[in-house]
Amino acid sequence: MTPDMPSTGYSINRQVIIEFHKTIFDMEVSRIEKRFDELWPITRSITGPGFRKSLKILQEDIPLEIESIPSGTKVFDWEVPPEWQIHDAKLTGPDGTVYADINETNLAVVNYSAPVDTHLTRDELEPHLHTDPNLPDATPYVTSYYNRTWGFCLPHTVYEDLPDGEYHAYIDSEFDQDGVLNYGHTVLKGETDKEVLLSTYLCHPSMANNELSGPLVLSSLYRQLEQWDHRKYTYRFVVVPETIGSLSYLSQHGDHLANNIVAGLVLTCLGGPNDALSYKRTRQGDTLIDLLVENLDRYSEYEFEIRPFTPTGGSDERQYCSPGFNLPVGQMARTVYGNYDSYHTSHDTKKFMSIDAVSESVARIEYLLKLLEYSERYENVKPYGEPFLSKYDLYTSINSPETRSNSTDDIKNDQEDFLDKVRILLNYSDGTNSVVTIANRQGRCVDEFAPVIRRLQREGLLEVR
Amino acid sequence: MTPDMPSTGYSINRQVIIEFHKTIFDMEVSRIEKRFDELWPITRSITGPGFRKSLKILQEDIPLEIESIPSGTKVFDWEVPPEWQIHDAKLTGPDGTVYADINETNLAVVNYSAPVDTHLTRDELEPHLHTDPNLPDATPYVTSYYNRTWGFCLPHTVYEDLPDGEYHAYIDSEFDQDGVLNYGHTVLKGETDKEVLLSTYLCHPSMANNELSGPLVLSSLYRQLEQWDHRKYTYRFVVVPETIGSLSYLSQHGDHLANNIVAGLVLTCLGGPNDALSYKRTRQGDTLIDLLVENLDRYSEYEFEIRPFTPTGGSDERQYCSPGFNLPVGQMARTVYGNYDSYHTSHDTKKFMSIDAVSESVARIEYLLKLLEYSERYENVKPYGEPFLSKYDLYTSINSPETRSNSTDDIKNDQEDFLDKVRILLNYSDGTNSVVTIANRQGRCVDEFAPVIRRLQREGLLEVR
Amino acid sequence: MTPDMPSTGYSINRQVIIEFHKTIFDMEVSRIEKRFDELWPITRSITGPGFRKSLKILQEDIPLEIESIPSGTKVFDWEVPPEWQIHDAKLTGPDGTVYADINETNLAVVNYSAPVDTHLTRDELEPHLHTDPNLPDATPYVTSYYNRTWGFCLPHTVYEDLPDGEYHAYIDSEFDQDGVLNYGHTVLKGETDKEVLLSTYLCHPSMANNELSGPLVLSSLYRQLEQWDHRKYTYRFVVVPETIGSLSYLSQHGDHLANNIVAGLVLTCLGGPNDALSYKRTRQGDTLIDLLVENLDRYSEYEFEIRPFTPTGGSDERQYCSPGFNLPVGQMARTVYGNYDSYHTSHDTKKFMSIDAVSESVARIEYLLKLLEYSERYENVKPYGEPFLSKYDLYTSINSPETRSNSTDDIKNDQEDFLDKVRILLNYSDGTNSVVTIANRQGRCVDEFAPVIRRLQREGLLEVR
Repeated sequence: MTPDMPSTGYSINRQVIIEFHKTIFDMEVSRIEKRFDELWPITRSITGPGFRKSLKILQEDIPLEIESIPSGTKVFDWEVPPEWQIHDAKLTGPDGTVYADINETNLAVVNYSAPVDTHLTRDELEPHLHTDPNLPDATPYVTSYYNRTWGFCLPHTVYEDLPDGEYHAYIDSEFDQDGVLNYGHTVLKGETDKEVLLSTYLCHPSMANNELSGPLVLSSLYRQLEQWDHRKYTYRFVVVPETIGSLSYLSQHGDHLANNIVAGLVLTCLGGPNDALSYKRTRQGDTLIDLLVENLDRYSEYEFEIRPFTPTGGSDERQYCSPGFNLPVGQMARTVYGNYDSYHTSHDTKKFMSIDAVSESVARIEYLLKLLEYSERYENVKPYGEPFLSKYDLYTSINSPETRSNSTDDIKNDQEDFLDKVRILLNYSDGTNSVVTIANRQGRCVDEFAPVIRRLQREGLLEVR
Repeated sequence: MTPDMPSTGYSINRQVIIEFHKTIFDMEVSRIEKRFDELWPITRSITGPGFRKSLKILQEDIPLEIESIPSGTKVFDWEVPPEWQIHDAKLTGPDGTVYADINETNLAVVNYSAPVDTHLTRDELEPHLHTDPNLPDATPYVTSYYNRTWGFCLPHTVYEDLPDGEYHAYIDSEFDQDGVLNYGHTVLKGETDKEVLLSTYLCHPSMANNELSGPLVLSSLYRQLEQWDHRKYTYRFVVVPETIGSLSYLSQHGDHLANNIVAGLVLTCLGGPNDALSYKRTRQGDTLIDLLVENLDRYSEYEFEIRPFTPTGGSDERQYCSPGFNLPVGQMARTVYGNYDSYHTSHDTKKFMSIDAVSESVARIEYLLKLLEYSERYENVKPYGEPFLSKYDLYTSINSPETRSNSTDDIKNDQEDFLDKVRILLNYSDGTNSVVTIANRQGRCVDEFAPVIRRLQREGLLEVR
Repeated sequence: MTPDMPSTGYSINRQVIIEFHKTIFDMEVSRIEKRFDELWPITRSITGPGFRKSLKILQEDIPLEIESIPSGTKVFDWEVPPEWQIHDAKLTGPDGTVYADINETNLAVVNYSAPVDTHLTRDELEPHLHTDPNLPDATPYVTSYYNRTWGFCLPHTVYEDLPDGEYHAYIDSEFDQDGVLNYGHTVLKGETDKEVLLSTYLCHPSMANNELSGPLVLSSLYRQLEQWDHRKYTYRFVVVPETIGSLSYLSQHGDHLANNIVAGLVLTCLGGPNDALSYKRTRQGDTLIDLLVENLDRYSEYEFEIRPFTPTGGSDERQYCSPGFNLPVGQMARTVYGNYDSYHTSHDTKKFMSIDAVSESVARIEYLLKLLEYSERYENVKPYGEPFLSKYDLYTSINSPETRSNSTDDIKNDQEDFLDKVRILLNYSDGTNSVVTIANRQGRCVDEFAPVIRRLQREGLLEVR
């Protein structure tokens, strides 16, 4: 069982999040690490057996249904590429030294390389070699999904010492025109059909922050949300290969999403040393989840780095937020792609990412989703005049100097503060103001209102709009 | 006769208000003081003979119709309570000393106390005693309308010296289930059916700023507005017991108000030492009267303290602004409840309030209402091209260096300034912009435009939208 | 042939404008000066032979159709005045000295003076004399179109030394009730019926900045725009007498303009020493051309002085922006009326105005109009997901450290920058955002997007909304 929100109704602070994290994750951390170690060595790509095997490992924690889309299927302006399978890849030098070997690291070969078995000079080899001069010890991650070519990736230091002479480039790969692209998804039913989308991608091979952190956070969130007493929203969990996977998902489920989702998050880069979560706004920019993140950042100690929406970088939110769909989907990250040196290299390891950072991200996002359930519009059932609060035991019926609400005392006692929030919610809940809007107008954090909302719902004074 | 607005058309300054005040109130001050002295000693509550008697005294100045609503009537979520009548109340100590006596001050008994005639120990008496420790010499004002109990109020200094022994608590009161709740109202017809609501409450016993100032300002405003040459709006004057009274009024007249009122003010706490009037916005926040008050505060020397709307404190505006009605009703005060120590105690006296402050509030609010009549939208009758101003003698027909309107001179003469305002009003009065909006855009005070509007209406160039 | 926009797609800077100017105007400057010299000496007014003759001179450069409206025609609230013709005007002193002579300067007589042939004393003459004391050497420009009077204008220094004695005032003018008011106009067809209005006025006699600069810029713009490869918009060129002329034009073409124009400029005061162009907003304030000018001013080195709209001063934009029409018409000037001493006097000469400044204004406004053609809303033809950019050769298909778009390098190479703009345009072009809005949101200048728009249109990915 996960703890419910603090009953005091005061604004969350750093400590609340830390406690929330501790309570839940003492056991979970070891499970997450175990799963990481299973997923790490697999040679994944946007299609192929590595991706399928990885989805099956995730099924230990989340009941994903695995779907297949045949190669060659039209997906909007795109086409599902042939399935890629790779059996071996090795670059051998004139002296017999193996300079790149998929068995050492699966980043050693350009992802989606065509097969090759040829001998060639150092000069002929040059255009097929990739390094990262800014991180000379690391093997970079290079892909070429839609332009048929082949290549090897190696540390810049190794590259600089390559001898002259004849090399043997050997890549045993194949493109299966009768193959498939796979994705996994599942739904956790709530009280309403309104959905929250949680989407991540699993195509990257042996890299940790980008991108085993995303699938690990997603599957852990499933385990947490499954235990909630009640869920107002239905939660949809989606694991795809990046870009072509979310496009495929939209081609099959886009209309459903457009009709049902109230909020969504692409989960990516959720480990790493950054302290705060880093949120990229939805394209619309002011949807419920945008406003909630802003409210927490501004009026509690739960801080975020908030980035504007942009279609020039990022991940699957670019597809969910393409103008034809324009879904209310943001992106939640922590140490963001491009903001750390080891991005897209062999240096993006478990050590850099840290299992603890991943589990803390789970706790923070779970808390955010809990608040999201209280953030939408409610409607005062008795909007003509103020309700007679004494009848619901919400009012101290004697108005003496100690209880009067116009007191100038700086410190209002809990009861007065509760009564203030009752009146604020009843007055502004006219079906047009969301709780986030109301909280913002008061300069308060949304989580202060959650316990009051529960009470007013119980008294029959407030209903979900 | 009240003076019309200054004909110069320049922005009001402190002096204008002061002169306005002087002209009107030389005679009025003594009338107001006389009425205050008649109303002060009456034991009022939200129902009962004291409230009725007070309404009748107000009828000397304003032709209020007095209405009755039977006890037990359902009013939205509320019910009109039984009528309360009190004949005597006395707390006698073991030594025969009378420690609280309604004949000394009608605050000595908890308002709406149940009858009691009993002997009890000091300890048994304790929960029935109320004091204000922050103001130990004062008797606090305590009410318990909807929770049947009884009690006495006394200075904290007296309370602290109460001897041990047997006390005699005696309250001769009754609850009449066949009684009524009363309110008074009247209407001053204007040229249109659009209404301005002026509402105040009269239920408080012997306190001055809160709340004899409100009814005194309301009845004085009636006397002033009655004398206006013409009234564009119809003015509705309402005197109720607080909360249950405005709820009752809304239950009977809410639809009418919703269809007709363009602005409204709850009048309360209009005496006291504060220099500026203190305005609490309507719930909508940007209605005509909100914008007008802002305009005056920003662009003239007529300053206001402007408070945001809140449902957590205040008076009947909370009912008028409940979400089902959401009327454009603000609250006008001066030294506001909760902002002065003597609030809701026996120290809130005529001396604290001051008759002069009350009469100055009348002058200021009357001036505000005068401007309100010019603040709404007008429509240019000849919107295609500029009208031919020479025809209306609004233009100097010779365009020489001395009269040209593009002059760079800092000091434009009156004629040029008048012409500028003619052009501004004609250009922007397209039926969507109110005069306040136009004035704000120009960084000018609304009262600069009033004489120009009158002229343009006379020429048939501008009409009320 | 005029040069197209710079192909690099980087933000315009001062140099771009200067080069643009040089390329075009080496030949044009002498043509403009020739035309100026022809127009300068003519005695113009709002009606009459001088105005007609001037229109015919402009026809050398722009195929204006000349229209006539009979005197006495009702024009909204106005009436076309009788045609004014003047043959001679002379003020002779007691000593035989001629103190004012239309043959010396046509400003010497009040424009629209009634005929007079009378002898009168110095005192009787006084109300008929006009000077500009602030510029004592200059003859002021005075008009009296609608108030039948007569008068002479002379330098204040001359006026101060006028001797006593009998003067002879002689004005040989006539008012022809069967005359006409003239204006000229022509249309340069574009690909769509959407129109851009360019309007100027020609009624001022011998003054240079105000107002031969306007007609000279207008006719030069015609010559430039005629040479464009393609015009998205249709351009309407209008030359009127000020105020009564634009009113007349609106009375005949107002409905057409209201239905078709997307932007417009009144051209006036376009010479003089000011460095930047000075733009007066449309009444609406946020139309396409307002936003474009703001964008250039903020995000390029092409600076503007931006003035708010006001109906209190200015020119024909006051008629185009009267509330009944409310057209998206701004005013483009440089050294603005009222901002220079020689305004409306004989000191407003070719030397003050400078032909070079006029020709530079042409270059700047032409550039602005070019950008305007790319500033409106476009629509992404493939809005579901991102288009598959590789198919259109818009994407580098291999994602290696050197090409990835999340690079942290400060300096993105041109290809990446181009790709960013492709994605930005495709994502935000949903039919609601104009290119100016998109550019503003990115903090970039509109002209950076123009080459990308052309490319995307060619690929069939973007179309005009």
